[in-house]
Amino acid sequence: MLAGADALYGYGRYLDRVPARQGQHRHPSDNREEGARAIAALEAAASGARVALVSGGDPGVFAMAAAVCEEIAAGPETWRELDVTIVPGVTAMLAVAARVGAPLGHDFCALSLSDNLKPWALIEKRLDAAAGAGFVIALYNPVSRARPWQLGSALERLRRQLPPATPVVLGRAVGRSDERVTITTLAAADPQAADMATLLIVGSRETHVIARPGRAPLVYTSRSAPGTP
Amino acid sequence: MLAGADALYGYGRYLDRVPARQGQHRHPSDNREEGARAIAALEAAASGARVALVSGGDPGVFAMAAAVCEEIAAGPETWRELDVTIVPGVTAMLAVAARVGAPLGHDFCALSLSDNLKPWALIEKRLDAAAGAGFVIALYNPVSRARPWQLGSALERLRRQLPPATPVVLGRAVGRSDERVTITTLAAADPQAADMATLLIVGSRETHVIARPGRAPLVYTSRSAPGTP
Repeated sequence: MLAGADALYGYGRYLDRVPARQGQHRHPSDNREEGARAIAALEAAASGARVALVSGGDPGVFAMAAAVCEEIAAGPETWRELDVTIVPGVTAMLAVAARVGAPLGHDFCALSLSDNLKPWALIEKRLDAAAGAGFVIALYNPVSRARPWQLGSALERLRRQLPPATPVVLGRAVGRSDERVTITTLAAADPQAADMATLLIVGSRETHVIARPGRAPLVYTSRSAPGTP
Repeated sequence: MLAGADALYGYGRYLDRVPARQGQHRHPSDNREEGARAIAALEAAASGARVALVSGGDPGVFAMAAAVCEEIAAGPETWRELDVTIVPGVTAMLAVAARVGAPLGHDFCALSLSDNLKPWALIEKRLDAAAGAGFVIALYNPVSRARPWQLGSALERLRRQLPPATPVVLGRAVGRSDERVTITTLAAADPQAADMATLLIVGSRETHVIARPGRAPLVYTSRSAPGTP
């Protein structure tokens, strides 16, 4: 897909990971300009170019695929005639989970802590519902410069419902040279330890940690739940 | 990983997709024997073999990684000394989502409808919590020969809370020759249309369908929710 494109669009840091190719134009943009980036890519495609929009992880999970669809829905009729292909990938929660064991081995949810596009009260409602029903919770976009308090507030909220010993995994930049993965508990989890590139997995009552001699612990969520017939 | 293994374990149909390699032993097993398969692989590894356990999709999502961790937790101390690497992959919900647009573009959960290892009442509780809080819902293991009524019951349950027009995607065997993807609504979704290889995505109130001339519709979940400041 990338090799056949005339033009590449994307967040600058993601484009930097794609090898250069002669005759291919690059249009890096800032991290926060998803709508404008999608529009620029759609305009180029509508004018006849073969365009690739580069995303990290899976473009369908808190990433560019939804932004592109939103702009197609709002844009000119001709954009609906464009050939759009979405290539799935390994989203951050799957990469982090694989590093520590199988914390997403049973029912789980993925929740963005960004309140840029939804009210904080809705995020709290979803945290309460997910924890109350026993879902493991993957937290995307935990912090940013403009959103410094949200993760701390979310962890406080989860502490109301989940035991202090609930396993928590912080994973950042998995698979890259600056990878850092930490296994802790809900009681000890420090919001300051997370940055923009961090994904958190907060376990359920069925999430366990296996200590191992000379190796990192394994974190997994049991496939069976209490009350099984 | 696969190339360096002395022995391959896995569900027979998954092993069939791995090219044969001289000197490599294959141990296919039945679909339902996860625990026994994990134990056999761990025993072989503990005896010094390099073992690969082959899974479809992502092994960390309703698949073998959790089964292996469970057996390590319950097994002999020596199993905790084994070098275990989990290779993440594209789990079914991401593959299905990419085929139709970006239905998982905002907060979502993944829920197994199998009540083999958890009570049905807990599944209903999770369906209610997820729909009530506005999560998009990916349903894994919707039906099997031994579980014929669960999907119909789950859809009925969701109809209590979600509008009839809520988009529903049924995707089976995505990426294989017998791929079949259907876009319908919660009111029209037919449980008989799903089989063991099917994954369902049930939208939220923020999930929309874009009709396109001469092309399949796009399904996406908006990144913004009502009440955004």
